[in-house]
Amino acid sequence: MMEVPITKLEFTKELVRDTGRLIQSLMSQNLNIDTKQNAHDFVTNVDKQAEEFMVAAIQAMYPDQGFITEEKMIDNEVKHDMWIIDPIDGTTNFIFQKRNFAISVGYYEEGQPKFGIVYDVVGDEMYVGITGEGAYLNEQKLEPLDPNVALKDAIVNADNRMFKTFKVDLDEHIMVQRYLGSAALEIIAVAAGRTNSYMSRRLKPWDIAAAVIVLKEVGGTWYFGDYHDAIAYDDKHEVFISGSNATILESLIALR
Amino acid sequence: MMEVPITKLEFTKELVRDTGRLIQSLMSQNLNIDTKQNAHDFVTNVDKQAEEFMVAAIQAMYPDQGFITEEKMIDNEVKHDMWIIDPIDGTTNFIFQKRNFAISVGYYEEGQPKFGIVYDVVGDEMYVGITGEGAYLNEQKLEPLDPNVALKDAIVNADNRMFKTFKVDLDEHIMVQRYLGSAALEIIAVAAGRTNSYMSRRLKPWDIAAAVIVLKEVGGTWYFGDYHDAIAYDDKHEVFISGSNATILESLIALR
Repeated sequence: MMEVPITKLEFTKELVRDTGRLIQSLMSQNLNIDTKQNAHDFVTNVDKQAEEFMVAAIQAMYPDQGFITEEKMIDNEVKHDMWIIDPIDGTTNFIFQKRNFAISVGYYEEGQPKFGIVYDVVGDEMYVGITGEGAYLNEQKLEPLDPNVALKDAIVNADNRMFKTFKVDLDEHIMVQRYLGSAALEIIAVAAGRTNSYMSRRLKPWDIAAAVIVLKEVGGTWYFGDYHDAIAYDDKHEVFISGSNATILESLIALR
Repeated sequence: MMEVPITKLEFTKELVRDTGRLIQSLMSQNLNIDTKQNAHDFVTNVDKQAEEFMVAAIQAMYPDQGFITEEKMIDNEVKHDMWIIDPIDGTTNFIFQKRNFAISVGYYEEGQPKFGIVYDVVGDEMYVGITGEGAYLNEQKLEPLDPNVALKDAIVNADNRMFKTFKVDLDEHIMVQRYLGSAALEIIAVAAGRTNSYMSRRLKPWDIAAAVIVLKEVGGTWYFGDYHDAIAYDDKHEVFISGSNATILESLIALR
């Protein structure tokens, strides 16, 4: 029982840090690795334990919360207060690199984004976006993104499979390609000014629900297929394209 | 004047750390950015100052040393003792990301590798390979790489332009793609077991001269065009393909 009430945001920041410590402690033990949709779609015992830990903590603190989570340790159910959670975004990196993965928690009310937290566990970087208030890296406010960068001068994070979905040879239209393998961390990289776009052919809401709140607060923008620039409480794949400004996003969409 | 003689390796580790501090201090100031071969081939005042600093320190400590350096602050000249230096490998990342770049120093005698140091400045990770003795990350010995990983289960670091040089659709032959944009750090990632291959269409000796010494000590292997698995004291581009084991390297070469 808390003696002093704290905000949901402060509660969640603390919970995410605690979950990061849990993941770090389990990471040094033997992982139990399973596959999901295909031989390279991995899940581990740590993804599941981390998600269970987060869901249980939220339920213990707040009544009547809804969840959409990657690992389905709780049934997806839509309520007024919605938590969209990916306990480990970048599971392949988690398994093989032991870095370059993140905890992603987006909090929405009646379909509207309230705050999003992306935590790079090993890098110890916590990115927080608060709708209408700003975005922060480890409590330091992020600067607005440059609205004037053109696609030809852009760093673009995406894999070759995404590049191949374009009508043109995209390499001829950008500065350079990069690809890390964690949607949350790559959208965050756009928000932090380290790249100008992140794209993927098939993402689910929990991959992006937190990071796009951060991105929006610094002037970035995105396209999420049928959902346009919103998040729906669906468990459905969509193409995702983000831009550090509208020019880059629109240029990319026009070339597909 | 040193009171106690130290080895060339210990001298170089200290020098690289000092250079890292220099780069960090200059990084927070305004960069002076020029281009070289094309509009996206960058060099900054920091690349040049860091190289000058290293070369001057080596010359002050040891007589009659030869150098091959990226920024040409000293003429390339072949001598018995050769230093192959890239003061900032990943200059594009340095400029736009302020991370994901490295100092790379390879030390060779009569064409034979003696030691190589790759220092991830912002991550504060120093990788050291000592020919015949082993490889280390921050003084901790690196484990030998798994000789049995097959290409179909491999993480491959390379950009789309490199993938296009293959006869086949390489995406269909690997597990996943990644791409960071620093040759030294990506070869080190192979050595540290975080990826299984790094490839590039056009590298110069200073991009790889240090990292391949680390890679070899943990059982990794590579192909560097005309030079095969060696380094020549040339200022010439070659294709580079590395593997965490011989099977992966040979599979990749066979598919080109």
